[in-house]
Amino acid sequence: MKTFFECIPCLIQQSLSAVRLVTGDERIHEQVLREILQSASKMDLCQPPAAMAQVIHRRIRKLCENDDPYRASKLRFNRLALDLLPDFQHRVEKSPDPWDAAVRLAIAGNIMDLGVKGGVGEAEIREVLDHSLQEPLHGSPAEFADAAGRARSILYLTDNAGEIVFDRLLIEHMPHQEVTVAVRGSPVINDATLEDAEQAGLFNLVTVIDNGSDAPGTIIHDCKEAFQRRFADADLVIAKGQGNYETLTDVSGNIYFLLRVKCPIIARDIGCPVGRMVLQPSRKK
Amino acid sequence: MKTFFECIPCLIQQSLSAVRLVTGDERIHEQVLREILQSASKMDLCQPPAAMAQVIHRRIRKLCENDDPYRASKLRFNRLALDLLPDFQHRVEKSPDPWDAAVRLAIAGNIMDLGVKGGVGEAEIREVLDHSLQEPLHGSPAEFADAAGRARSILYLTDNAGEIVFDRLLIEHMPHQEVTVAVRGSPVINDATLEDAEQAGLFNLVTVIDNGSDAPGTIIHDCKEAFQRRFADADLVIAKGQGNYETLTDVSGNIYFLLRVKCPIIARDIGCPVGRMVLQPSRKK
Repeated sequence: MKTFFECIPCLIQQSLSAVRLVTGDERIHEQVLREILQSASKMDLCQPPAAMAQVIHRRIRKLCENDDPYRASKLRFNRLALDLLPDFQHRVEKSPDPWDAAVRLAIAGNIMDLGVKGGVGEAEIREVLDHSLQEPLHGSPAEFADAAGRARSILYLTDNAGEIVFDRLLIEHMPHQEVTVAVRGSPVINDATLEDAEQAGLFNLVTVIDNGSDAPGTIIHDCKEAFQRRFADADLVIAKGQGNYETLTDVSGNIYFLLRVKCPIIARDIGCPVGRMVLQPSRKK
Repeated sequence: MKTFFECIPCLIQQSLSAVRLVTGDERIHEQVLREILQSASKMDLCQPPAAMAQVIHRRIRKLCENDDPYRASKLRFNRLALDLLPDFQHRVEKSPDPWDAAVRLAIAGNIMDLGVKGGVGEAEIREVLDHSLQEPLHGSPAEFADAAGRARSILYLTDNAGEIVFDRLLIEHMPHQEVTVAVRGSPVINDATLEDAEQAGLFNLVTVIDNGSDAPGTIIHDCKEAFQRRFADADLVIAKGQGNYETLTDVSGNIYFLLRVKCPIIARDIGCPVGRMVLQPSRKK
């Protein structure tokens, strides 16, 4: 997906929220703001917004001299999700359609995102997870079950820390010996890395790899070769979150997107309202 | 008021809405966007947002080769306000406190603004005017009446076309032989100019001058000398709208600000919620 004009002020607002979460130093806030305005004035709008976000967050990490400024937030999200997990695991097992419930919770977990909004509280996370079991879903869990059942190799692209715990819950309902989970190559915002996959307990369940990239999405040519091979060989790719949606909608492959819609541009692109849970196969095969 | 960091993405969003209202040509949208990002990256944040908006709208007019791209909108607002006037004039006269009602309608008229939001519809304008007679008001119309009663010369700084018709309604309840109305020196967004003052019927009532500037606010040093003298000599300055608030809060003088709060920065500065009607004397005497 290209960057739309209205993505630019939004990216600038997000950068400001991001740098404020990372440091209280107003001189750094101003420097980040000015640099981002400067680079946005020259940006290639054919690239997805996540490509710009990658550049922005590299610069924030550099200026704050902190390789992983969201580390504490990620740990907090993982712990919260692990605390909530037993209750939701129980509800999935007791559900008349456990697959449907697990899909919904994996999508609802996408609320744990520090990229789009400045922050999200525990109460909101619990409420979103609770409501997800009943609220409207754009897509068909049954067709998605068929696609997963037919695939001999599944590549599952995660999005955020915390959320990854609910990805595990869904993966437990898949033929999980055939699943490879891929996380980001290094820290960017609160996106999940190998450390988060370990905390979520995925290492005992499936093969976990990192994609070698620090983009908050999956920019294929920016990922390491081993990841690119896995991507090309997978029968089914499951891509979580807006960052992966933006960066993979124009890529060929048997891809299912699982996300919560967080902005009007994605809402327009998918054809549903902001806030809606989405389970959508790629239109580009 | 200085420009806060969060004013920048908002100014960029406003510029995009503005240029889209003026032309459908996407190449111009992109050019305006890129130029504004470039100049915002170097802007002096000690200046009020209206100074940046002045530069932006000059550039939009130049690129669109149109000296007054909002002319049709202004005419539409003036006509709508003139259509609504007799009914509201009647309600003011029948009101137990006509001054209070006239003050409220003059403030409510500030809804007719194309600067902050991309547009505002007729239904919303009617509703805002209707509700204004009962809704909470931040400030004291009685103290404002005292200030107006004591002043031997009043300089009334208007904001938008359409709104200026409801300014007339308030001015009719003042010692209007002592009132001078000042409009913008040339077109910027849908801010009122001499043409709008004439359409609103102000020429038969009071002295009307223009301030010589195309800023969507009152940047004193950018205004013509005759205006600056009137400003310095006035016993009381009445300043309508956010643009005049931003540009005059740090200027000495006996100033009353009348506005609807349209953004969280101004809301924080004044200490009331977004949407609230405000009638506030300057803190800087």
